[in-house]
Amino acid sequence: MNRLLQDLRIVELSAFVAAPLGGMSLAQMGAEVIRIDPIGGGIDLNRWPVTKEGASLYWAGLNKAKRSLALALDKPEGRELARALIAAPGAGGGIVLTNLPPARGLDYASLKAARSDVILLRLTGNRDGSAAVDYTVNAASGFPLVTGAVGRAAAPLNHVLPAWDIAAGLYLAMGLLAAERHRSRSGEGQEVVMALSDVMLAAVGHLGYIGDVEINGAARPAIGNDLYGSFGRDFATADGRRIMVIALTPRQWRALGTATGLADKLATVGELYEVDLNTEAGRYEAREAIAALLSRWCAARPLDEIAAAFAGTGVLWGPFQDFVELVRHDPRCSAANPLLARVEQPGIGPYLMPGLPLDFGAAPREATAPAPRLGEHTDAVLSEVLGLSSGEIARLHDTGIVAGPDGR
Amino acid sequence: MNRLLQDLRIVELSAFVAAPLGGMSLAQMGAEVIRIDPIGGGIDLNRWPVTKEGASLYWAGLNKAKRSLALALDKPEGRELARALIAAPGAGGGIVLTNLPPARGLDYASLKAARSDVILLRLTGNRDGSAAVDYTVNAASGFPLVTGAVGRAAAPLNHVLPAWDIAAGLYLAMGLLAAERHRSRSGEGQEVVMALSDVMLAAVGHLGYIGDVEINGAARPAIGNDLYGSFGRDFATADGRRIMVIALTPRQWRALGTATGLADKLATVGELYEVDLNTEAGRYEAREAIAALLSRWCAARPLDEIAAAFAGTGVLWGPFQDFVELVRHDPRCSAANPLLARVEQPGIGPYLMPGLPLDFGAAPREATAPAPRLGEHTDAVLSEVLGLSSGEIARLHDTGIVAGPDGR
Repeated sequence: MNRLLQDLRIVELSAFVAAPLGGMSLAQMGAEVIRIDPIGGGIDLNRWPVTKEGASLYWAGLNKAKRSLALALDKPEGRELARALIAAPGAGGGIVLTNLPPARGLDYASLKAARSDVILLRLTGNRDGSAAVDYTVNAASGFPLVTGAVGRAAAPLNHVLPAWDIAAGLYLAMGLLAAERHRSRSGEGQEVVMALSDVMLAAVGHLGYIGDVEINGAARPAIGNDLYGSFGRDFATADGRRIMVIALTPRQWRALGTATGLADKLATVGELYEVDLNTEAGRYEAREAIAALLSRWCAARPLDEIAAAFAGTGVLWGPFQDFVELVRHDPRCSAANPLLARVEQPGIGPYLMPGLPLDFGAAPREATAPAPRLGEHTDAVLSEVLGLSSGEIARLHDTGIVAGPDGR
Repeated sequence: MNRLLQDLRIVELSAFVAAPLGGMSLAQMGAEVIRIDPIGGGIDLNRWPVTKEGASLYWAGLNKAKRSLALALDKPEGRELARALIAAPGAGGGIVLTNLPPARGLDYASLKAARSDVILLRLTGNRDGSAAVDYTVNAASGFPLVTGAVGRAAAPLNHVLPAWDIAAGLYLAMGLLAAERHRSRSGEGQEVVMALSDVMLAAVGHLGYIGDVEINGAARPAIGNDLYGSFGRDFATADGRRIMVIALTPRQWRALGTATGLADKLATVGELYEVDLNTEAGRYEAREAIAALLSRWCAARPLDEIAAAFAGTGVLWGPFQDFVELVRHDPRCSAANPLLARVEQPGIGPYLMPGLPLDFGAAPREATAPAPRLGEHTDAVLSEVLGLSSGEIARLHDTGIVAGPDGR
């Protein structure tokens, strides 16, 4: 958390990962982000992982530092309130972030009629408006068919990280700041649209895989945990752990030979295979022979001994760990890291929560805020942003147009 | 490409994915991004995939629309030129983006002495300055140990997409715009620092996996291509293809039953397992029984028939495809998509290149620019930004301080 964007007010109509992450990133830089959900919650309210009582750690994780407003978006009066919030005056207002299909009256034209300089950022599945989510976009990306071991059946293997949604959320946050920058200079709002499948296509292209097919007429193979075009792989240790060892640069390659005492044998591998192991392509060509030497070296030593041998040498490496090991034993994943703080999450309890990974020298890090309860800020937002009286707010509750944290 | 940021000038000292992607995203919004490399190229100049002639499709992909300056960063006069470029006057100048260790004289304090409102964005491996790259950060993240099938040996499985680097690059671009917004209002520059391992920790936490361990004392298992906490999985078709089928929402779940004609049988599954299949948790609980019915249905039909059965029904699904199928047969991956254009890349030839995935209504999409040749803009940048005479520039070439596209 910091206060860099404290003059911005963003209305978020969202679910799942992408728009919530984008909005949260801006909220963690101080923007007032008002997430509007239907009364009873959005489709992601109970998404896993959940606690034993069914509270969603996922929803809490992706909506930290926001304000929550529960509104009957299925009723005209509810949508009218949403539009009024979006159109409310103020130089930093009039900004909407969404990854949901537009509700009637909340499309760009309607919002622009209500506030001429409105900025609407909208994530769709495909560019033509058809549905696509992280899982279908990933299936189309080519990556699941080059994930996993050589020679396995040609069955796709999905990654578990929702990487396309994460990239999309960060693109949205970046795009929002670019659009707001334009508005602050020109007075002009705009609609900014992005398709999740275009995020995938852009990444596949940027990494060279479209060019690979178009220019080389081929695509990279599945090579398990080996690095493509350089040297890197996982190795088992004597005590049953796994480590990743990498040599991208000549310096890292020399360090690996020195730290393991295998420099002479590795040089002989280069001669045997007639490749220059000081180049990435040479190391990739001879990777199996290199790995055979390193496998034996790693398998003869427990992790602690390997860590000691590599410490301070410039070898690029790291142990694999599961989520439990990461949370319980990795010192980076503790309150000693300024990124993380143990915060009381309403309905769940205290646990370690990350703030924004960026440290701004001119905007000191402040306490990480938890996620709101659904509807926690309904009354406050209606009062502060729209100036509604307590009588008017009570009527909206009574008629089921809005709800507070008690669900009514 | 658009011109939203055309008044910004950013100097990039970078390699590999993260900072280059961040800089390129800003260049594709019109910023002048000057990537400075050592004479002869940076450590990523030949990164795979490469063409048969050894030209890097990866480097070209991640440096589109930038200007390239080749400079002897190992010599004081070279570093002095870099500092002068960074400190050059202009409201939109004085911005640096880097993921390399700071060269002498190019740290924040030195740059601030040269231009008091300088903005420096710096990506490190770990927060303590120790080395970490996408591969080691991923090993530590927990994800490789929940990737792949149930019951396989507990060997980690890396994803192939450099997802942490991609997220880091987009965080940097977002952070740069936030810092520049602050400077344009306050006149104050700043250093912004981010560790790649913190990007990973933030994502693991945001998705609920830190809370899962801390609150539930457990972590999610590896479940192959199954969705965690809902229904989704891959299925084989009669013609040897694979598809991903997902039901996150009640509407998607009903559509799946209707489109396959399996609604009644699926309802019986719910009764047998005594779970409510209208909930995500219920579908997750009964996922194997659901999948058994769907497997048989998919295995009896070729892809075309399945596509026809699902079209317009609201079923959320998509086929798996490899990179070759994506590039050759997916209509989204073609010049018919405004995201992509066939562009002539110097040293490689024409191929399909992505622009920015965001479409800005107020900043029309312009032609995608290819990557520069190394040193292509050395003379132009020295002349335009520093006002050096052709005589001075010739002397810099002669003394090996700068180089042009011919390497000298």
